Amino acid sequence: MMIDKDTQGAATATVTVGDVVFGGQRLVLIAGPCTVEDRTQMIEIACAVKEAGAVMLRGGAFKPRSSPYAFQGLCEEGLEILAEARERTGLPVVTEVLESSQLPTVAAVADMLQIGSRNMHNSVLLRDAGASGKPVLLKRGMSATIQEYLYAAEYVLSAGGRHVVLCERGVRTFETATRFTLDLSAVPLLKEQTWLPVIADPSHGTGKASLVPPMARAAVACGADGVIMEVHPCPDCALCDGDQSITPELYYNLVKELRAVAQVVGRDI
Amino acid sequence: MMIDKDTQGAATATVTVGDVVFGGQRLVLIAGPCTVEDRTQMIEIACAVKEAGAVMLRGGAFKPRSSPYAFQGLCEEGLEILAEARERTGLPVVTEVLESSQLPTVAAVADMLQIGSRNMHNSVLLRDAGASGKPVLLKRGMSATIQEYLYAAEYVLSAGGRHVVLCERGVRTFETATRFTLDLSAVPLLKEQTWLPVIADPSHGTGKASLVPPMARAAVACGADGVIMEVHPCPDCALCDGDQSITPELYYNLVKELRAVAQVVGRDI
Amino acid sequence: MMIDKDTQGAATATVTVGDVVFGGQRLVLIAGPCTVEDRTQMIEIACAVKEAGAVMLRGGAFKPRSSPYAFQGLCEEGLEILAEARERTGLPVVTEVLESSQLPTVAAVADMLQIGSRNMHNSVLLRDAGASGKPVLLKRGMSATIQEYLYAAEYVLSAGGRHVVLCERGVRTFETATRFTLDLSAVPLLKEQTWLPVIADPSHGTGKASLVPPMARAAVACGADGVIMEVHPCPDCALCDGDQSITPELYYNLVKELRAVAQVVGRDI
Amino acid sequence: MMIDKDTQGAATATVTVGDVVFGGQRLVLIAGPCTVEDRTQMIEIACAVKEAGAVMLRGGAFKPRSSPYAFQGLCEEGLEILAEARERTGLPVVTEVLESSQLPTVAAVADMLQIGSRNMHNSVLLRDAGASGKPVLLKRGMSATIQEYLYAAEYVLSAGGRHVVLCERGVRTFETATRFTLDLSAVPLLKEQTWLPVIADPSHGTGKASLVPPMARAAVACGADGVIMEVHPCPDCALCDGDQSITPELYYNLVKELRAVAQVVGRDI
Repeated sequence: MMIDKDTQGAATATVTVGDVVFGGQRLVLIAGPCTVEDRTQMIEIACAVKEAGAVMLRGGAFKPRSSPYAFQGLCEEGLEILAEARERTGLPVVTEVLESSQLPTVAAVADMLQIGSRNMHNSVLLRDAGASGKPVLLKRGMSATIQEYLYAAEYVLSAGGRHVVLCERGVRTFETATRFTLDLSAVPLLKEQTWLPVIADPSHGTGKASLVPPMARAAVACGADGVIMEVHPCPDCALCDGDQSITPELYYNLVKELRAVAQVVGRDI
Repeated sequence: MMIDKDTQGAATATVTVGDVVFGGQRLVLIAGPCTVEDRTQMIEIACAVKEAGAVMLRGGAFKPRSSPYAFQGLCEEGLEILAEARERTGLPVVTEVLESSQLPTVAAVADMLQIGSRNMHNSVLLRDAGASGKPVLLKRGMSATIQEYLYAAEYVLSAGGRHVVLCERGVRTFETATRFTLDLSAVPLLKEQTWLPVIADPSHGTGKASLVPPMARAAVACGADGVIMEVHPCPDCALCDGDQSITPELYYNLVKELRAVAQVVGRDI
Repeated sequence: MMIDKDTQGAATATVTVGDVVFGGQRLVLIAGPCTVEDRTQMIEIACAVKEAGAVMLRGGAFKPRSSPYAFQGLCEEGLEILAEARERTGLPVVTEVLESSQLPTVAAVADMLQIGSRNMHNSVLLRDAGASGKPVLLKRGMSATIQEYLYAAEYVLSAGGRHVVLCERGVRTFETATRFTLDLSAVPLLKEQTWLPVIADPSHGTGKASLVPPMARAAVACGADGVIMEVHPCPDCALCDGDQSITPELYYNLVKELRAVAQVVGRDI
Repeated sequence: MMIDKDTQGAATATVTVGDVVFGGQRLVLIAGPCTVEDRTQMIEIACAVKEAGAVMLRGGAFKPRSSPYAFQGLCEEGLEILAEARERTGLPVVTEVLESSQLPTVAAVADMLQIGSRNMHNSVLLRDAGASGKPVLLKRGMSATIQEYLYAAEYVLSAGGRHVVLCERGVRTFETATRFTLDLSAVPLLKEQTWLPVIADPSHGTGKASLVPPMARAAVACGADGVIMEVHPCPDCALCDGDQSITPELYYNLVKELRAVAQVVGRDI
């Protein structure tokens, strides 16, 4: 397979999105709100996380929600706001695409396409995202084995995609004290088996803001090429996933810790 | 929610597909190959399962496979063959749709749309299938909670769909002796909570042909409104899922057993 | 291994406890309260379940509870009450032993020793129970694979035990709508791989009284050699596991249904 | 409950075993072979891990094995060898006790009693270990929720035990690429909820030697009070769990990395 490390040489390949390089010496910190709520909120967060050290913005415009009656995102308006946040900060943007028909719309704005956990088995979307030529942030399915996850990446690559970044974001287990069970062992395991960069998402992986800092440090310590986190100035009033969002202040301090851990494992932030 | 039993009266509603009624006195037996392989095979199986007592045909034209290099189905040609099998036998056809863009093509042939386990969280597809007006066979996601599964059905209904049938098909657990763990408790539990008909799929749920007959009997015994099974004249040479396919002869005998179990629980076949 | 079917001939061996034969033509129905609460309660339930058709009594004297502050059982007094219930009804008694040091005490009263889910990996207890010569009802560990479960039975047999009955009682999964996920596929699978009799416990397997009747029927339909269920005259006031207990009246009617299902699969009750 | 943090003040309590303090400024590194194989091996490993920086020895004398035909440990002879390793190195010893009847024998040698994953629900053993007054290293059950795990610790404490250290060692999930899924989120979560020290076991948690160093670093980064690891001079010829053992050389280098990570989170080694 194209993803196999041994057919590609020993090193992790790099994936470049604007000025950002995944898989290089410098770790990639991605931050932003779970969902784009309004222009003011997004710009405020974007500026704050940039100042803290983030190099890429995240924010959901099209949201995959369990209930059809939950907030489904600002859609096209959300994309416009993301574009404006990018202009203000200069940071590239990653946002989720839910379906192939949305690809032209999302790809027109996003610097990197996110394929979420609920779509990791969506082979049509994987192929079409690969064919689009855009870099893809492919999250692990919530009950996907490592093997299935690698096959999903192979769908993107076999359709012509050249730039895939993997992301461990928690798997579904019997434990209910956390939202998911963050399977950090997957990070070094994936890096053994494939040359793709691998990052971690402690926000979704734990579902609890208080666990995000320790698990972000752990992700860096075990070799992740980056960390994606949800940051919101007022987690209690967030429209989505407030329980797992940390404040910009907390994020600012956390980045300093992550920088120190990164240096221990021979990386920079 | 629209799916809630208490807002809709006590009884299971019926879902009608051609002459077939889900949720009525008579159980619905659906059978066919995992994937449509060629005209001769499909017609042979269709005639055999009809003779055995099946009232609806199944067969994959667009297949969701873990690997991009595995056989992906005959696609449009598979749909044509399914249409021919329907003409020969008079039995309606259910087949999977993988993505919204395939909906017009698949809906032009299928009497009922199947949304598979890997797409149960695909909210765009759920909505578009609902809006199509076609009856939907909605399989449970392999790690979906009962709550999430009911929300998925609600997506279809809230988009205008009126005819949804649920299908327990096994969930992902630590056990590897079976392909999935068939969660038959979900059948009576779903029937307590919703007025939608509920069937079971012991073929995918177990992944082992020898377990299909006992688990099909168990499904009927615990109140399923039907059973969907994979039947193949030569399981060892099937292009897909041969391990879990039973022969037409075995199916013929199994239907007799299911009829006897059905009578015990006050139903017919 | 001693448990392997192929080294022992094709048929399920029988395990005899008093007049009761596991693995024969007649299915074994075991019933009683989760825990022995007092003399009156136990005698009342014992008479009721005997009248309904049960052939063995269950009831916990030593209870394995998650919390040290929950009711831990009547201990020796509970055993005395069980002995009295046996005298009144003539039905043999199965009750749980939690530790090797309890073996003489429990074995002095019990006709069959139960080793519970939480002790399935307790190799010392398994061996000592085997060496005692008493028949053993060995429940599946809540996260034990089929392979590990068979090894546990092998511990009993390799220590000299000759009479082991297996019991599927639900495994731990991500699903929280039921207490455990009753893995009924394990019943025919175990019967394929070993000559030991296999029964099912839909009370613990589901944790919900309303699901006990359908899943008991399903257990018989898929080939179980018996069913163990919790029966309590007042589930709402039970000291333990009231949510999953059914009333004697309900049990009485359920046995009639199970008898009908048994006949379909060529068995009696 | 006695384990609750809020009833006990904010800080993690310390548990002292000889000169070793769990829960203090200095992290506790425990190392040794999975099982004590012979005198020479044990002494060699003990000296090597001491030189590397370990402050406590581990080694199984009584082994809980899935199969009754697998090596069950050297038993009393293993304890004698552990005592000799302690004399040579001055390091205290932790070793597993499988059953209450073994407590006097094991407690006569061990400085700390290990209660393993398979016995976490064994309430009799928990109580008896608590009553013994010895410090207890209580490993998490392989499918125990955080709540059940804390209840198990409460069993030890409520029986008079005052010194319990928790240990996350991997939980059972659908993933088979690793032996278990190391749930490192449990470390900070447990430290939020209880005042007990918490360590991690990346050897059992991953089952793969190559994953032990990254996951040990991650454990320290997320706040573990120590790390227990399996070290063997010849993993390929180990009698037990060789796949997850690292060599003394590798351990020596790993400790240096762990020291650096510890300093980032304000701790020492």
